[in-house]
Amino acid sequence: MTADIVSEVKWNEQGLIPAIVQSADNGQVLMLAWMDEAALLNTIKTQKAHFWSRSRQASWMKGETSGHTQEVIELRLDCDSDTVLLKVKQHGGIACHTGRARCFYKRYDNDQWVTDEDVIKDPTDIYPGK
Amino acid sequence: MTADIVSEVKWNEQGLIPAIVQSADNGQVLMLAWMDEAALLNTIKTQKAHFWSRSRQASWMKGETSGHTQEVIELRLDCDSDTVLLKVKQHGGIACHTGRARCFYKRYDNDQWVTDEDVIKDPTDIYPGK
Repeated sequence: MTADIVSEVKWNEQGLIPAIVQSADNGQVLMLAWMDEAALLNTIKTQKAHFWSRSRQASWMKGETSGHTQEVIELRLDCDSDTVLLKVKQHGGIACHTGRARCFYKRYDNDQWVTDEDVIKDPTDIYPGK
Repeated sequence: MTADIVSEVKWNEQGLIPAIVQSADNGQVLMLAWMDEAALLNTIKTQKAHFWSRSRQASWMKGETSGHTQEVIELRLDCDSDTVLLKVKQHGGIACHTGRARCFYKRYDNDQWVTDEDVIKDPTDIYPGK
């Protein structure tokens, strides 16, 4: 059955699609990551967000190290079938590896990218082994 | 000045970044498109969303044909500097070329992608010449 779900998606040359993650609590866009087929299927199966890391060339479950998992409330596909949108419950309230609530913490202001959101938890406390 | 804005961004191999567009009115994620340097600079300069069309290999201003322009209220960059997030006022209330409010009108439900949002305006009325 899930084969159809996967075949309807238009994967790019690398077999990936961008996945936008939005908070189900406050509507904030938390992050963008990438999914391969396995990540999409694992996300559907477990209802926890899974992605493909392009830098590490490996599958990962969001929160597998940090504990900041993302429970998927809703999964959507766009008109071109080449981008998905996840509404999630962000455990721990931290989506970004910098320890901030979301990855989009830099705002364009007067010809500069200005960081306007605080670190909630020090990354060295989130990822003790690193 | 704007050269710094551009050089801080990590453009991909094609010189592009994904741009997520979110409604400033209701927080809905409307669409994902791509920007090249010129699109980013034009967006900043005009405060109207500009993108790069990968299929047409051409610059475009959102709404140039349909009139459904996107007035940019806020522009954000993520932690990796490889994705931007635009909060916009969506003119006409239609972001999708299918005539729907947003592109993410297909929801995953029980092993299917189900269209659960209505067409607001027939695309043949939006793009009369096509």
